[in-house]
Amino acid sequence: MIMTSFALYKCFKRGYTVYIPRKEFNMELNTAIEKYYKLQAKLAAYGHAMSLIYYDGSTTAPKDTAANRGRALSVLSEESYLLSTGKETVELLEFLDDHKKELSEKDARSVYLALKDIREMQKIPMDEYIEYQEVLVEADDVWHRAKEENNFAMFFPCLVKIFDFEKRFARYCAPDMHPYNYCLNKYEDGLTMEKCDKFFAALKSRIVPLIKKIGEKEQIDDSCIYGSFPASEQESFGLALMDVMGIDKGHCGLATTEHPFTTSLGSHHDVRITTNYKEDNFASSMFSVIHEGGHALYDMNSADELAYTNLDGGVSMGIHESQSRFYENLLGRSREFAEYIFPTVKKCFPSLEKYTAEDFYRAINKVEPSLIRVEADEVTYALHVMIRYELEKAVMNGDITVLDLPREWNRLYKEYLGVDVPSDKDGVLQDSHWSGGAIGYFPSYALGSAYGAQFLKKMRETVDVEKCLETGDFAPINEWNKENIWKHGCRYTPAELLDRILGEPFDPYVFTDYLEKKYGEIYGL
Amino acid sequence: MIMTSFALYKCFKRGYTVYIPRKEFNMELNTAIEKYYKLQAKLAAYGHAMSLIYYDGSTTAPKDTAANRGRALSVLSEESYLLSTGKETVELLEFLDDHKKELSEKDARSVYLALKDIREMQKIPMDEYIEYQEVLVEADDVWHRAKEENNFAMFFPCLVKIFDFEKRFARYCAPDMHPYNYCLNKYEDGLTMEKCDKFFAALKSRIVPLIKKIGEKEQIDDSCIYGSFPASEQESFGLALMDVMGIDKGHCGLATTEHPFTTSLGSHHDVRITTNYKEDNFASSMFSVIHEGGHALYDMNSADELAYTNLDGGVSMGIHESQSRFYENLLGRSREFAEYIFPTVKKCFPSLEKYTAEDFYRAINKVEPSLIRVEADEVTYALHVMIRYELEKAVMNGDITVLDLPREWNRLYKEYLGVDVPSDKDGVLQDSHWSGGAIGYFPSYALGSAYGAQFLKKMRETVDVEKCLETGDFAPINEWNKENIWKHGCRYTPAELLDRILGEPFDPYVFTDYLEKKYGEIYGL
Repeated sequence: MIMTSFALYKCFKRGYTVYIPRKEFNMELNTAIEKYYKLQAKLAAYGHAMSLIYYDGSTTAPKDTAANRGRALSVLSEESYLLSTGKETVELLEFLDDHKKELSEKDARSVYLALKDIREMQKIPMDEYIEYQEVLVEADDVWHRAKEENNFAMFFPCLVKIFDFEKRFARYCAPDMHPYNYCLNKYEDGLTMEKCDKFFAALKSRIVPLIKKIGEKEQIDDSCIYGSFPASEQESFGLALMDVMGIDKGHCGLATTEHPFTTSLGSHHDVRITTNYKEDNFASSMFSVIHEGGHALYDMNSADELAYTNLDGGVSMGIHESQSRFYENLLGRSREFAEYIFPTVKKCFPSLEKYTAEDFYRAINKVEPSLIRVEADEVTYALHVMIRYELEKAVMNGDITVLDLPREWNRLYKEYLGVDVPSDKDGVLQDSHWSGGAIGYFPSYALGSAYGAQFLKKMRETVDVEKCLETGDFAPINEWNKENIWKHGCRYTPAELLDRILGEPFDPYVFTDYLEKKYGEIYGL
Repeated sequence: MIMTSFALYKCFKRGYTVYIPRKEFNMELNTAIEKYYKLQAKLAAYGHAMSLIYYDGSTTAPKDTAANRGRALSVLSEESYLLSTGKETVELLEFLDDHKKELSEKDARSVYLALKDIREMQKIPMDEYIEYQEVLVEADDVWHRAKEENNFAMFFPCLVKIFDFEKRFARYCAPDMHPYNYCLNKYEDGLTMEKCDKFFAALKSRIVPLIKKIGEKEQIDDSCIYGSFPASEQESFGLALMDVMGIDKGHCGLATTEHPFTTSLGSHHDVRITTNYKEDNFASSMFSVIHEGGHALYDMNSADELAYTNLDGGVSMGIHESQSRFYENLLGRSREFAEYIFPTVKKCFPSLEKYTAEDFYRAINKVEPSLIRVEADEVTYALHVMIRYELEKAVMNGDITVLDLPREWNRLYKEYLGVDVPSDKDGVLQDSHWSGGAIGYFPSYALGSAYGAQFLKKMRETVDVEKCLETGDFAPINEWNKENIWKHGCRYTPAELLDRILGEPFDPYVFTDYLEKKYGEIYGL
């Protein structure tokens, strides 16, 4: 077929690149791309429905309706799975992949990611995959009960199976890779044990001594964050915080759940964050709103052209945590922000009238080795994560067995944090990650903190961050993050993105320097 | 193939009727039925997702996310449409329909209803159907603005199109039927203008004189329902009302929306009701909770075997309204219930301490001709509905045009209710039904009231309704409704169901007798 000038004109109008020698083929490619993004939009709609069903279950659904939701989720996830892995889809993806050099960078990346998922899925025998999903459903239930009853033995058989499946699937999908590296990669593309070892060694070398020095100093009086704070007033304060952070509430909602989380519905145009109110401690919900708000800003600010594709939203757990912890700690727990926000705090909670912004600043930065990761301060947090990393690595390596986990857990808590673990409930059973099969997830939390510190250093080259915080004007900060991080969605791998943002290698000592400076000043070291 | 005794045994165990001469075919039929209910379950999952997206939009979604929801809804409704009308489905349904005599009554009814929808859809040209959907999307928006600006001319072109489409579709789908009868049938299977005319004539003959007589008496002082009632306290009261009504809150939620409604998610196992709080009038939300609670009880109590099929939930708008208005008026506004509930009312709203249950009973039964249907009392309500019925019929008949509607509306309000309509905003533009294309819907409201009165009469033969209301024990009442109405879901047509319940013809005078007796006593006629 000879391409007529009219057809050429149409291609031009549509913004397609026209390669005359391959004109007929290009028409086909354009059709394939159109078809591909239609498929992506369909998958986004299924994603919308499934995320909303989950969100509904966590927020307002009547308590005995889980089985009914399960029915809908099972149908929708099967339909979505068939759609994304069906013969027609695979053929389309392979066709596009064969011609990836002719695709735009964006299209090629989207196709690559879609195909990557399918190719992995194809390597796992379907019956084993289904069996694992069933194990996970059971494990979630068993873990809840085991934690409640402080009974690791009850959870033990499930956890053995979970580690086994993870090892097996790693061998299927990446036979040339260490199984734990495969797990790490699922949450942070490109991460390895070698990188983690180096990273955590750096943190340990600086944080453990820092904690020791802090422990020798007089402890901070944090009584100003405690008192009686009705949930409804905390909610008003949370909404005000969202405004200060520059979160567009027209596209981001705030709800209450047992565990705070952030979710997007269908695209970055509808994001929901949740928090939980402790009526005796307003800081708990305050910082969970800021933390989830950081996730939300990242998700909400993908470029609009990425909406309804698999490139929409954050690229990895590490980068995601870098944003949430950036807002929560680097900004939210800074002296400048504490001084800016404290008048608002006092307006919302008049019982705090007698306290100063300095009291507040010190209270929200109290460092104290403790048992529970999610309640840990900025300094000790990374060590909680490191303990989990070391234990996961040891089990995946075969150095220890699942049976050894409680003992090893307690030993490491004593060694790194100096605390005695009184019970497995507050020890090895505290997190939901393992029962959900999320082996390899934890390091992204600590990486996020360290990425964030280096982003802040870079941001300071062009943005007067202190002034922004002093005046509560987050716009320049958000603008920098949007330009450098948010708008790219999943267009780049985490490593490529880091490279683009920093223009220099990742350096965990930027984070430890930050901690030493800030807490040295607070504790007078 | 010879059916072995084992296969026969299996068929027997499963409760299938086994026709030996057709044994091979019957196996096929069983497979088809299984396939059919799998399809129904899939459609229920899509329904769950779509209802939840709508519910989310009305309750907690951030305000600027409608377009994002629209994307998901458009994909899911298309997928669901393709699934329910695709070639494979139609073949399956036609196969089952060909063998309907061998199906159980339940299966045959389910297949009949599924096929009925498809056959209608097939008669409407796809492009016209899509055009109409677009008109409705626009009309919803235009109606909102026209109502706000009190500008019927603005809404007029949309309304002309809507009536035109309704007439055209009626001709396509039921060329032998009067177009308005076709419309009535959509909401109440079997309803005709002839039946409506007779029904409304009966109501008019008794209600118009009753209203006149009441108007000559001293008006009730209803000050006890007004005051200052915070939404949060009204919500607690609403939840308490749900308990009294015997609504299982483990499967039924209560939320806040602009307009109260009831929706089921996927099946009768998860139902949500909504209400709206007027902080100066607690009775408004109280009776909307009871009204929606009646809808919820009906939906929630389909037999479990109907879940995830098209037989789940209420059968028609008329029967549905009979239940909501039964709880709202026949029970909720009875003297016995007023006496039972008033101590709870006073506990929730201590400012009412000085009032008696009798004050309360009279206040919630004040009869006053007014402009707005949704705020009308039990007596005048049916006349509001009748006016809409007469106008719809006249337009569908060609007796008047859409342009005449405001004038005719105002004339009938004066004639039947004796009120002057000051503006179209509070007149012809007040309801959302027409902008949503729901021509033929209104009569079901009045029918529901009248059905309910006759159900109550029947119920009294075996249930001591007064005692139930005096003691707040709704169990015997609910049990009767469940056995006679709720559990059947859509197994029977509305006419068949009425017949089963009443065992005698529908008699609108039971309703007017009830009104005359109750209000004669209240107003001392």
